[in-house]
Amino acid sequence: MSKFFGVVPPVVTPLNDDFSVDYASYTRVLDYLIDNGCHGLFALGSTSEVVFYDDAERRKILEHTVKVANGRVPVIAGVIDPTTDRVIRHARTAREVGADAVVVTAPFYTLTNQAETIDHFRMIRDAVDVPLIAYDIPVCVHTKLSRQTVVTLANEGTIIGVKDSSGDDGNFRYALSDLAGNKDVFLMTGSEIVVDSALHMGAHGVVPGLANVDPAGYVRLWNHARKGDWDAARKEQERLCRLFEIVWVASGRVSGGATGVGGFKTAMRSLGVISTNVMARPRAPLNDAEARKVDEILRSVGLLG
Amino acid sequence: MSKFFGVVPPVVTPLNDDFSVDYASYTRVLDYLIDNGCHGLFALGSTSEVVFYDDAERRKILEHTVKVANGRVPVIAGVIDPTTDRVIRHARTAREVGADAVVVTAPFYTLTNQAETIDHFRMIRDAVDVPLIAYDIPVCVHTKLSRQTVVTLANEGTIIGVKDSSGDDGNFRYALSDLAGNKDVFLMTGSEIVVDSALHMGAHGVVPGLANVDPAGYVRLWNHARKGDWDAARKEQERLCRLFEIVWVASGRVSGGATGVGGFKTAMRSLGVISTNVMARPRAPLNDAEARKVDEILRSVGLLG
Amino acid sequence: MSKFFGVVPPVVTPLNDDFSVDYASYTRVLDYLIDNGCHGLFALGSTSEVVFYDDAERRKILEHTVKVANGRVPVIAGVIDPTTDRVIRHARTAREVGADAVVVTAPFYTLTNQAETIDHFRMIRDAVDVPLIAYDIPVCVHTKLSRQTVVTLANEGTIIGVKDSSGDDGNFRYALSDLAGNKDVFLMTGSEIVVDSALHMGAHGVVPGLANVDPAGYVRLWNHARKGDWDAARKEQERLCRLFEIVWVASGRVSGGATGVGGFKTAMRSLGVISTNVMARPRAPLNDAEARKVDEILRSVGLLG
Amino acid sequence: MSKFFGVVPPVVTPLNDDFSVDYASYTRVLDYLIDNGCHGLFALGSTSEVVFYDDAERRKILEHTVKVANGRVPVIAGVIDPTTDRVIRHARTAREVGADAVVVTAPFYTLTNQAETIDHFRMIRDAVDVPLIAYDIPVCVHTKLSRQTVVTLANEGTIIGVKDSSGDDGNFRYALSDLAGNKDVFLMTGSEIVVDSALHMGAHGVVPGLANVDPAGYVRLWNHARKGDWDAARKEQERLCRLFEIVWVASGRVSGGATGVGGFKTAMRSLGVISTNVMARPRAPLNDAEARKVDEILRSVGLLG
Repeated sequence: MSKFFGVVPPVVTPLNDDFSVDYASYTRVLDYLIDNGCHGLFALGSTSEVVFYDDAERRKILEHTVKVANGRVPVIAGVIDPTTDRVIRHARTAREVGADAVVVTAPFYTLTNQAETIDHFRMIRDAVDVPLIAYDIPVCVHTKLSRQTVVTLANEGTIIGVKDSSGDDGNFRYALSDLAGNKDVFLMTGSEIVVDSALHMGAHGVVPGLANVDPAGYVRLWNHARKGDWDAARKEQERLCRLFEIVWVASGRVSGGATGVGGFKTAMRSLGVISTNVMARPRAPLNDAEARKVDEILRSVGLLG
Repeated sequence: MSKFFGVVPPVVTPLNDDFSVDYASYTRVLDYLIDNGCHGLFALGSTSEVVFYDDAERRKILEHTVKVANGRVPVIAGVIDPTTDRVIRHARTAREVGADAVVVTAPFYTLTNQAETIDHFRMIRDAVDVPLIAYDIPVCVHTKLSRQTVVTLANEGTIIGVKDSSGDDGNFRYALSDLAGNKDVFLMTGSEIVVDSALHMGAHGVVPGLANVDPAGYVRLWNHARKGDWDAARKEQERLCRLFEIVWVASGRVSGGATGVGGFKTAMRSLGVISTNVMARPRAPLNDAEARKVDEILRSVGLLG
Repeated sequence: MSKFFGVVPPVVTPLNDDFSVDYASYTRVLDYLIDNGCHGLFALGSTSEVVFYDDAERRKILEHTVKVANGRVPVIAGVIDPTTDRVIRHARTAREVGADAVVVTAPFYTLTNQAETIDHFRMIRDAVDVPLIAYDIPVCVHTKLSRQTVVTLANEGTIIGVKDSSGDDGNFRYALSDLAGNKDVFLMTGSEIVVDSALHMGAHGVVPGLANVDPAGYVRLWNHARKGDWDAARKEQERLCRLFEIVWVASGRVSGGATGVGGFKTAMRSLGVISTNVMARPRAPLNDAEARKVDEILRSVGLLG
Repeated sequence: MSKFFGVVPPVVTPLNDDFSVDYASYTRVLDYLIDNGCHGLFALGSTSEVVFYDDAERRKILEHTVKVANGRVPVIAGVIDPTTDRVIRHARTAREVGADAVVVTAPFYTLTNQAETIDHFRMIRDAVDVPLIAYDIPVCVHTKLSRQTVVTLANEGTIIGVKDSSGDDGNFRYALSDLAGNKDVFLMTGSEIVVDSALHMGAHGVVPGLANVDPAGYVRLWNHARKGDWDAARKEQERLCRLFEIVWVASGRVSGGATGVGGFKTAMRSLGVISTNVMARPRAPLNDAEARKVDEILRSVGLLG
């Protein structure tokens, strides 16, 4: 197995009231994840609100991540922007800063297709000497990485892994099967709520935003799965599913993007990991009534006294 | 009527074979559009492949546009990126460089809603003293600006105009009607093929990518409409519809994004306006067989001898 | 021009409180439409709530339509059901009953493609000696009839016309252009709110649900267009757009299907044409508060005193 | 547990070359499924091509199913048509014929919402004294039954179970959890390829079209799951996933609907269960080259010598 495996949370980026990054809180988040046994860190992912930050801030966030991680776990870096050459710039920065791999989506805003998407990955790989992980997130980029695209890129060595946030578990299973003979490639699921299923299918890891709130829970789930104790894995997963309800607390009032990460930030504030639940503009944070509902859920799963 | 009216093409950005911007050709494009009577220029739009360029290149393109335009026509500038603060940065640059207004989409990549989108426009307006034009382009950003959103933003003075590329002509008509009493606001259609209809409804202008190929045609169409000669307008529009078939010549082989702008660039090369039909990476350009089909179409509408 | 042209409303089917068809009201609807100058009748369309009725009721509705029309105007009949042989059965009935043509959608519920859809139309045409009109209504059947599909079916003689409710005005324009040389084929728009545009493009007719409420308005619009008085056409259209707001009065409370036809029925009740605003189950009718808003709109456009 | 559990295939309807139902083959299909241990039969489902048959043929198919089943296993009957009263008619027939329960989708063709869909189920339940099973199949009806809709209908006693073909495994898991305390309700998955996952989550059964080809495989999978042998379940599932590739053999040439059921029918013909691979019109059957590919797949999983 490669060094990329296990529980690799997409790390929440905490903010001060003035919308600047709260690096003191960010240090606490990183330590919280590592101390609770996470096997890697995914900085600058969707959950990290990466597309809200400019080049300079992204570099600073990544430098901080690498410094705090300090080799304890691998750091992978989102290099997410609409098109090839802009991604290449981000990837060069990530390499300079010391990321172990970069996470690349299909192009977005521009209309694209599978052939162009394959070229996109190849051009990035040719331009920068850093391992690539393909990020399948159609809900954001509106292109699904097809089974054939993933298999082609993996078998030719363009990518070393996949983070699948498509919600298409059947397709994920076929990709696992198609690539079963390729020991250099890993597939991780971005799901929070069917992680036990994905691990049972053979997934090499999991990238759950919710692990920012309960890293120990996902590590326990991972360990149960490694031991083949699927009943214990299911029970832990079911507890985490109850916790995941925090992402719908503000549904209707704020956008789907805001209620999800907003739920994580609000819970992390209640747990004392971060100082505010401020969201990147123009997203609104959860309000007090919603925060109280988040706390109820935290209590119901044993995370809050 | 405001100074923003008439035919305002989203200007194609010509490239050299090494993917750098070909500024000599770009100068020719700008002069070609102005000399043929266009009433304004929209630099850094979707047709300009804006999302393929980084901050520095965007600034350079815009500076070049303003310099060549030299006050002959207004210049509006796309400031297109996923989120609020990044758009604000682009808007500041556009203001410094001398753009007359900036064109802003709804947030993208991130999941958003109408309320957040309204906040997005307001925050940008508060941050930069430059007129805002709302760009309704759901095919790229996957959020439609609702009739209510547009009317709210216009009537409170956050935006001075709308470029509607949604293809929803009924909704466009209702926005025109709702804002008929607000003389400070303009609505332009992004359509190439129902411009006569949009003008008949009362649209204040048109932003057709195809005007890069045939600016004189769209200016004739505009002039027919101004005179109320709807039969002549329709005939010109029908000729332009035949020309518009160049955007499907490479359909199937390349992506929807590539075949459209690729068709424009290939036609402009044949007309001697630009030097290559190179597309921004990872898009592939039209090939020779496709270029011959483009030429046939150019001949059929009288643009090529 | 064929006998199918002009204003051809999809006729609302009025109901009694027990959900049975109210034939006395239905007679009034048919006379109201014919007396106000409509050029044809489309019974058993989407606005007629056709998919809510079984074979026996559909036959009865159609018999009644043909009897009341009594040759004054042509009657076209929706034969809408998911698959080929079921449509053939309906088409046979329509022919027996005396419909002048039948209106056929792409297959639905089942996943289909353009080739199968073409076969679907051909098989129906082969099986029943009745003229076919293609009904392009992707919002209901989730398949768009492509430009190529429509042109193929028209030029080979499988269909004699198209009712386009797709909202894709550009595609409609191309179909008009492609079929301009085929004098045996007509194209009608299903739009209520861009009818002037469609007629200006060359549409042969219009099939607006709203004509159930204001047939005289659409006939005036048609007549203005025939005379080339596009300004008068636009003004009438704008009045009808204000009237069309009745279809959103119950938005949010009931489904999109219910608020649209529900708005028509409620307005027709206020105008004394029908006796109830009852909707086919499981749709809920507009309530009293909503009915009052409908009346306000009717008054604002001069239909109610 | 209720009497509805385990492997309940949606039974393929075999056809003669003249498109009439081949009842001799149909008897063999039913016996093949029962003899191989299936726990129930779902006649007139999507895989059965239900929407291609009229009322009389549906009754005949259902009568034949009940007669051949002869009480050996429960028979559930699809009563699938666009709207409430038409479904009620089918449900009455199903009750008369002796079906143990009926399977009802959300309304289709007509635009609907969750509230109307809830009313739809209630009205059917009120009208006919037969147990209802909700069928969540957004790919066909274009409405997803929300978690709240399913839970409401189940807890008030309107439905006794759910067949979930939505592919949304996370939502399925939440419905299982919400209804865990309601022992009268069952939830089955319509998936073919993540059945082990669904059973591990607690699903009460599975309704896989592919069980028409390999009922014994799904029964083995079920039995492994019942014993908690998740490794054996996964291995059997992976074999079935390889078999499931038959549904893509004709992709591109025929529609998505045709290649799926077409793959099943072609395989069943090769296995000697049915006599033709004829599809209901307008669907085209798999051709000889495709049939040979199906046979290769059958051999690769040990079903064909």
